[in-house]
Amino acid sequence: MSEPAGPKVAVIGLGSMGMGMAQSLLRAGFTVAGCDTVSEARNAFAAAGGTSFATPAEAAAGADIVFSVVVNAAQTERIAFGAGGAADAMAPDGLFVSCVTMDPALARDFAARIEATGRLYLDAPISGGSVRAAEGTLTIMASGTADAFARADAVLDAVAAKVFRLGDAAGQGSAFKMVNQLLAGVHIAVASEAMVFAAAQGLDLAQVYEVITASAGNSWMFENRMPHVLDGDYRPASAIDIFVKDLGIVDDMARAARSPTPIAAAALQLYLAASGMGMGREDDASVARVYATLANQALPGGRNR
Amino acid sequence: MSEPAGPKVAVIGLGSMGMGMAQSLLRAGFTVAGCDTVSEARNAFAAAGGTSFATPAEAAAGADIVFSVVVNAAQTERIAFGAGGAADAMAPDGLFVSCVTMDPALARDFAARIEATGRLYLDAPISGGSVRAAEGTLTIMASGTADAFARADAVLDAVAAKVFRLGDAAGQGSAFKMVNQLLAGVHIAVASEAMVFAAAQGLDLAQVYEVITASAGNSWMFENRMPHVLDGDYRPASAIDIFVKDLGIVDDMARAARSPTPIAAAALQLYLAASGMGMGREDDASVARVYATLANQALPGGRNR
Repeated sequence: MSEPAGPKVAVIGLGSMGMGMAQSLLRAGFTVAGCDTVSEARNAFAAAGGTSFATPAEAAAGADIVFSVVVNAAQTERIAFGAGGAADAMAPDGLFVSCVTMDPALARDFAARIEATGRLYLDAPISGGSVRAAEGTLTIMASGTADAFARADAVLDAVAAKVFRLGDAAGQGSAFKMVNQLLAGVHIAVASEAMVFAAAQGLDLAQVYEVITASAGNSWMFENRMPHVLDGDYRPASAIDIFVKDLGIVDDMARAARSPTPIAAAALQLYLAASGMGMGREDDASVARVYATLANQALPGGRNR
Repeated sequence: MSEPAGPKVAVIGLGSMGMGMAQSLLRAGFTVAGCDTVSEARNAFAAAGGTSFATPAEAAAGADIVFSVVVNAAQTERIAFGAGGAADAMAPDGLFVSCVTMDPALARDFAARIEATGRLYLDAPISGGSVRAAEGTLTIMASGTADAFARADAVLDAVAAKVFRLGDAAGQGSAFKMVNQLLAGVHIAVASEAMVFAAAQGLDLAQVYEVITASAGNSWMFENRMPHVLDGDYRPASAIDIFVKDLGIVDDMARAARSPTPIAAAALQLYLAASGMGMGREDDASVARVYATLANQALPGGRNR
């Protein structure tokens, strides 16, 4: 058997998003090396037909394209530039694609450090959740040089249904993603606030869902997350601590830019409370349980705290 | 010519919503008496084929169905029960339809006072805006007795595309409306917050609109109101002071129910600021101009304050 043609790809971080992306790349016919610190993730990816490694440098050795799908900027710095990191191991003209949601200032810093070695960087935060990651139908908010986009085209098609091209420098993709996260985080929190407010008024919550999703008060997140509250099902589709992180980044950016975000700041406090109450790894609709506790209201499922 | 058959209808309040509803009722073949304190509104309604009066009692004299489409609960009390009010003037078995957004406790109080005279009351707050009012395609969040609904059926069809039947007593319709207003008010404010945050990050706002309306951060209000910001057009589709009132009612209800609404409370402060800065009668997307002032950012249209 001959080697598959096309670029060698590495995916660093085989969590719920990275695993789906890595498998989408395999399905598209690429040679894919995966990396995760968790042995179960490595074994699952090997079973799916990939090659698994425990360190970024091993997975990225000679890779033409490296996807970083880790949790945050600190992990990105470690897997790229730390001991056993990917940056020095990849092909000398390789492309580093960062899919992590982070402060645009850090995306610019990482891009500068990668580009200083002669390599390319694409600032490419993803959205869409684990189901769409597995399907290869994510949305990507990307920015970078024309060379970086040209190199990325084939692999982005394998993982995304929609790629927004948002500028010619790293940072712009991340900034768009943070605007989206500001809105998404507030919308989940205020949806939770409204549902418990409705419960305190004695309203039927299923009927509230029916009325609001047909009215001007609707949001994408109300429609998507409030069924979790109606079902009393807080298994994590996306966890509370993601918004502790993301609204924290919004707060950092707002302070740095002297651009007040009082509503996002209020929402952040609710996510902090949910995490403080022990629900950090549970579904982000758990903010409703914070409100239910504050107002002493019962929610469906008998899983109020 | 013979008198048209069917109930005699009165519409109290010929503002942007009441005028459209009154004209929709005329188109449906009803005999409609209108009332407004503003002579221009009375003249416009007479020109459209209605009969106009300056006092509620004159318009409601012998009416089978009276719509109240005034601004708030205080005006409702005055036009129903004050000197020259509608309640005693209408038919002894008439139906009073309150379309005003108000605290559910007040809706229950007004219903009890109307019902004590042997008449019927429908708690029927409306939404959809002036264009849909003129088309006869509003959404109504209604509650009331079976008798009240039975009497209302024919006239509601003339003004609404969708009637939610939300319970058998006054107050429930109003409570659903307030849940919607909590969400709608916060969504406009956070949409404004996100747009100015994006401006401070140097992003192209038209591109922000394109990305967000295709992403998980979208809301009905973001999609509907942010074009006003992109166009720099703050002529009032719906005014700032409407949300000063409605989020004020949410705040009152939340305090009475001991059900905290910190995000709605933060949003209310932004509407208060917009009104305090002199924009109370301008479009509710003017919250973006409050944020632009706070962050010293320019918005399109050169109409920053």
